[in-house]
Amino acid sequence: MAGTDRRQKLIAEGPVIVLVNPQLGENIGAAARAMANFGLAELRLVDPRDGWPNAVARANAAKADHIIDSVKVFDTLEEAIADLNFVYATTARQREMLKPVRGPREAAETLRKRHTAGERTGILFGRERWGLESVEVALANEIVTFPVNPSFASLNIAQAVLLMSYEWMGSSQVELPIHEPPSLPARKEDLFGLFDHLEGALDLENYFRPEHKRATMVENLRNIFQKAELSQQEIHALRGVVATLEGRKTRPRKDRQEPKKKPKA
Amino acid sequence: MAGTDRRQKLIAEGPVIVLVNPQLGENIGAAARAMANFGLAELRLVDPRDGWPNAVARANAAKADHIIDSVKVFDTLEEAIADLNFVYATTARQREMLKPVRGPREAAETLRKRHTAGERTGILFGRERWGLESVEVALANEIVTFPVNPSFASLNIAQAVLLMSYEWMGSSQVELPIHEPPSLPARKEDLFGLFDHLEGALDLENYFRPEHKRATMVENLRNIFQKAELSQQEIHALRGVVATLEGRKTRPRKDRQEPKKKPKA
Repeated sequence: MAGTDRRQKLIAEGPVIVLVNPQLGENIGAAARAMANFGLAELRLVDPRDGWPNAVARANAAKADHIIDSVKVFDTLEEAIADLNFVYATTARQREMLKPVRGPREAAETLRKRHTAGERTGILFGRERWGLESVEVALANEIVTFPVNPSFASLNIAQAVLLMSYEWMGSSQVELPIHEPPSLPARKEDLFGLFDHLEGALDLENYFRPEHKRATMVENLRNIFQKAELSQQEIHALRGVVATLEGRKTRPRKDRQEPKKKPKA
Repeated sequence: MAGTDRRQKLIAEGPVIVLVNPQLGENIGAAARAMANFGLAELRLVDPRDGWPNAVARANAAKADHIIDSVKVFDTLEEAIADLNFVYATTARQREMLKPVRGPREAAETLRKRHTAGERTGILFGRERWGLESVEVALANEIVTFPVNPSFASLNIAQAVLLMSYEWMGSSQVELPIHEPPSLPARKEDLFGLFDHLEGALDLENYFRPEHKRATMVENLRNIFQKAELSQQEIHALRGVVATLEGRKTRPRKDRQEPKKKPKA
């Protein structure tokens, strides 16, 4: 992937494609092929139903072996996107969620600008049958949805990967931003650390009640901090805020227990 | 699909998709599904290898039965496009032919204009293995080619149909069903209330130190919440978070002093 040819560089890099719980090897293979067609290279799988490696996936990749060979598999979505700065979630239908919703072209332009500015980006695709869970969408910065025929809206995941890959390639014509963002967004794992810290502190105070509303309350809080596109310094500051506020406990701050819970995908 | 609703009309009509000698029922079915996704309806086959009807094609159409049911089969390409006014040929590679070569988006815009002007239009797709013959391309008005990665250019015909169908849909004036975030950002005064509350709580804990850095620290914190474009509900949730965390003080919450300072924002 290294090289001095700028075009080659553009063609070998780009957003990471993340398939969450893919069920069919056919779709994994077709997604890899579509990525190769349009110059994407990095495919990650979260807990694929049939495990990995998958001969059906390779057979359906139409010789996109370089992508199949470098697939990475993760147990959780959090781990799969931990090193990324900016992530889109693809959804087929309206979500009642406080996140910007973009079309594929606009999303690709955003990804291109962020990529050019040095960010690591990704696009999440859900399961064949029911897409992404709300709690998974909440881990993304923004939503991308496809302008499909309302009366026939079910888009195959490999087709969705194809469209985003195609728009990614097309976005190479997009002009570069004049003003660069002042600082890179933090990696997701830093953000998840903040979630852990804040939610752990709130749990100790029984903030999330009644219990049946807990999931929604957690999701809403996480969305707030996703929207803010926090830098690492800002996350550091917010953790200082939480530590300060919860530091009023009788026991000294140094003894504060780290919450053990990982954010639930 | 006659009807008076202009939108319905747009969604039910459009270019005819013509597959020349398709070999695999899987691809015919996937093409039908892609057409349905993006509002195309008319599929024509020229001498399909496995005849017609084709159970594999129907199984792969993911319930796009209205398209499968109305497929028309022809012996020759000439017959298949006889009633059309304007036709694109899709090719994967450069042709030495005196025809205009367009990208998918530009081609879709041309098709849309001609369709709106009352023309009958079509798009030709070649065989899985070697595409369209030159003599077939010669029957088309113009060529459309896809901006694929030169080192991995083989686009599956169903994928090519998907991209053209997608661009066809995109070329319409029909807007995406959702564009704007579902709730308005809060009024600034609500945001300032949050600043007051948070900064007051932090002041009580001597968070802002050393003193000469106070102004910068306050500004950084405020920027975080400005960036998030918080809704009123989100501000409410965040104030609940602060109240919960600072509630560990020995004095009861009701006695908490309101900070007097207005934010200097």
